[in-house]
Amino acid sequence: MGDNREIVVIGCGAAGGTAAQFARKTDRKASITIFEKTMYPQYSKCGLPYAISGEIPKFEELIEFPREWFEKQGINIFLETRVERIDVKKHLVVGRQGGTVIEKTYDSLVIATGARPYIPPIQNVYQNGRLLYGVHVLRTIEDARQIFFEIKNDEKATIVGAGMIGLEVADCLYKKGMKVTIVEALPTVLANSLDSDMSDMVLQMIGKYVTLFMNHIITGVYGRNGKINKVFIKNKETGEEKEIDTDILVIAAGIKPEISLAKKIGCRIGETGGIIVDKRCETTIRDVYAAGDCTEYIDFVTKKPAQVGLGSIAVRQGIAAGINAAGGNYEMPDGILQTRTSRFFEIEIAAVGPTEKSLQKNLMVSGKFKGSSLPKYLPGGEPIIIKTLIHGETGRILSAQAVGSNAAQRINTFACAIYNEMKVEKLRKLETAYAPTIAPTLDAITLACDAAYIKLKHHKKSSS
Amino acid sequence: MGDNREIVVIGCGAAGGTAAQFARKTDRKASITIFEKTMYPQYSKCGLPYAISGEIPKFEELIEFPREWFEKQGINIFLETRVERIDVKKHLVVGRQGGTVIEKTYDSLVIATGARPYIPPIQNVYQNGRLLYGVHVLRTIEDARQIFFEIKNDEKATIVGAGMIGLEVADCLYKKGMKVTIVEALPTVLANSLDSDMSDMVLQMIGKYVTLFMNHIITGVYGRNGKINKVFIKNKETGEEKEIDTDILVIAAGIKPEISLAKKIGCRIGETGGIIVDKRCETTIRDVYAAGDCTEYIDFVTKKPAQVGLGSIAVRQGIAAGINAAGGNYEMPDGILQTRTSRFFEIEIAAVGPTEKSLQKNLMVSGKFKGSSLPKYLPGGEPIIIKTLIHGETGRILSAQAVGSNAAQRINTFACAIYNEMKVEKLRKLETAYAPTIAPTLDAITLACDAAYIKLKHHKKSSS
Repeated sequence: MGDNREIVVIGCGAAGGTAAQFARKTDRKASITIFEKTMYPQYSKCGLPYAISGEIPKFEELIEFPREWFEKQGINIFLETRVERIDVKKHLVVGRQGGTVIEKTYDSLVIATGARPYIPPIQNVYQNGRLLYGVHVLRTIEDARQIFFEIKNDEKATIVGAGMIGLEVADCLYKKGMKVTIVEALPTVLANSLDSDMSDMVLQMIGKYVTLFMNHIITGVYGRNGKINKVFIKNKETGEEKEIDTDILVIAAGIKPEISLAKKIGCRIGETGGIIVDKRCETTIRDVYAAGDCTEYIDFVTKKPAQVGLGSIAVRQGIAAGINAAGGNYEMPDGILQTRTSRFFEIEIAAVGPTEKSLQKNLMVSGKFKGSSLPKYLPGGEPIIIKTLIHGETGRILSAQAVGSNAAQRINTFACAIYNEMKVEKLRKLETAYAPTIAPTLDAITLACDAAYIKLKHHKKSSS
Repeated sequence: MGDNREIVVIGCGAAGGTAAQFARKTDRKASITIFEKTMYPQYSKCGLPYAISGEIPKFEELIEFPREWFEKQGINIFLETRVERIDVKKHLVVGRQGGTVIEKTYDSLVIATGARPYIPPIQNVYQNGRLLYGVHVLRTIEDARQIFFEIKNDEKATIVGAGMIGLEVADCLYKKGMKVTIVEALPTVLANSLDSDMSDMVLQMIGKYVTLFMNHIITGVYGRNGKINKVFIKNKETGEEKEIDTDILVIAAGIKPEISLAKKIGCRIGETGGIIVDKRCETTIRDVYAAGDCTEYIDFVTKKPAQVGLGSIAVRQGIAAGINAAGGNYEMPDGILQTRTSRFFEIEIAAVGPTEKSLQKNLMVSGKFKGSSLPKYLPGGEPIIIKTLIHGETGRILSAQAVGSNAAQRINTFACAIYNEMKVEKLRKLETAYAPTIAPTLDAITLACDAAYIKLKHHKKSSS
């Protein structure tokens, strides 16, 4: 109260926690309050698979900023507190912690309510309004902990969804000694990240470790003694049905933005289902900001709305929302690049920008390079494949995908190029770092650009 | 003769070999001739240390493009052929292979004569006009082969020069089980690549493996039975002298461009001692191109001439010289970034752009980040330190240096940023690739930029 700015943040995930942190950095005197519905302060959702595999020895280590950290910063944090109501006129947030009602007025409000896992229609998957025992999603520490304890005596795991999280979980369960089956509705893995020519290689590589049912949907589950025992799947093309014995089912079929509070107060919701925010992360309601998985933002390349579902973007939006909520001024770039990466079964993949299917085919050329991370004469090189998509008229770099050695850091260079609206003709002349033990004189980055540049010249000739 | 263009290339190193290759790609019908004074066609000079260490099992494997490869491309290659004379008026090159004189006329000439090792004044280092037995440079396959065979029974090695090559050789000899001593005239290692705050860390790390005499010059050598036995060194500050027992001495004290032919025909030589070339790699004499270590070119950031001494640049200049010599049109960027990297004693270092000492101190701020390659909660992260230098008025990124995990690929992103004349305010908002097993939500790239950005704001305040 009094003279100091009052800031309320709903949700203490990557976006909310970061927003509170940067609000504090911006305004040392502001009253800052976080409402978080779970019992956990800011922790890494992306780290959950590695707590299941045991690579992270304790679940508590996932907590990046504990309650005490926020308190030390003079940030009030209410855990296990669900926000019941926001009164925009009164600038008031009403939360409930068990039997206690907590009311906080705000000058600025940050909504960082995240997302919830999408559960496709599966017969018998719910029992008494809850997921059948043995059926899981992986979104919270609780989810991970349940999986961790449940699989102790289990042998067979089934995963729905061959996106990045599905494959990361598959790898972790495989490392725990389980027999893993993946069911994917699309014909390709990682469809949001890689084009089929790139993902087909990944498919072949992971096929050594797990059983894959591509083009299959899961139609139902069967429980024995109240615990999952079988899943039923169906080939989308042939209609053929199969049943798979399983001890556990993990559903990794994407997320839905958690927008109910925002919707109630009239924040505009976009076509992807996320809260619409501007460059400052402000919603369509004044003084109300939003950040993270509950939002959508413009894609840098396509200029179309994109669902925000990456921790890297959530943190950056949290920075923006926090600074602006505290009276500062921080603008996000003109769109999100969606730089993304993952590692599973010793394979590193990364991508930035839209995949082919989001781009107009006739306006686009691609270049691909497949080779070694090291010069040919030096043993020990690892495979690296890079593909880049180029605008067929302007030569502008639109996106890039990589599988193999240092894929993520190589994709960061492409991210920087796309962010600068660079043309392939320029990027291919970039002086990349060379040393025999590190990279060839012309890095895979350069050679993928060269391949694209040559195709671009032909494309221009044939279309002129 | 006849209707086809005639191209002559002098030198078949990275620049010359690449020039011939790209000349052929540009003009399928041209007559292309290479004169190479050694018996080897294009091989990797940078790979030589790893042939000594045995990581590359055979010296021949360093040859990237053998004689047959060039012949298959319809390129005439004369090995062990020294060019004696160039007649610019007659467009004629005269070479000598043993007793045979070979004359070739040219429409375009590419000079790619490389560089020779610089040998500082050292008493008794020459014997009968040659280096004393046991004293070596490392520039050719012959040099490497001699070292390889000579050290079979040797125990103690001394290296002059703690630049990238000096340290790479030190590592290789250490791996062969030798006791290695490094003598460096400057107070820091890697002075051309890293600022002292960065290189001091490297100094400490390598101090575990080798004995270092910093700030020492080598004044003389002592030979016993015609073979080196001792080196004499002197502390530059105190004048104190020492002698070091050694079985071998490797001099890695930099290079001098090999420009005698170019000078004779009147090519303009620049202040760094290299042949001056333009964006098309043409010298000041028409139809005469030059590429690689024999040239100098403008530094992208300082706009001052810089000696070209990196394989990555040599190859890129070779591309330009070859295409242009064959009638194509290829322009180099407006300067060289000097992106560079090296690995020794399990340390990866990389840098791009000028070090502090080449920049005006009052116009510059720096930002540094030291942390882990992975999020804190995930074990197995490796140290990474990144420093970036920023123009204090414009905020433009001038250079970056990295030591540790994936230093080279991280520096490539900075190279791309510098190449786009990006400001730190923009680069710090780059969406970097994040996954717990690969990199934190805010990569070291971002955090170094953040540190610089904060200092930039203070700098502007204090100077306004």
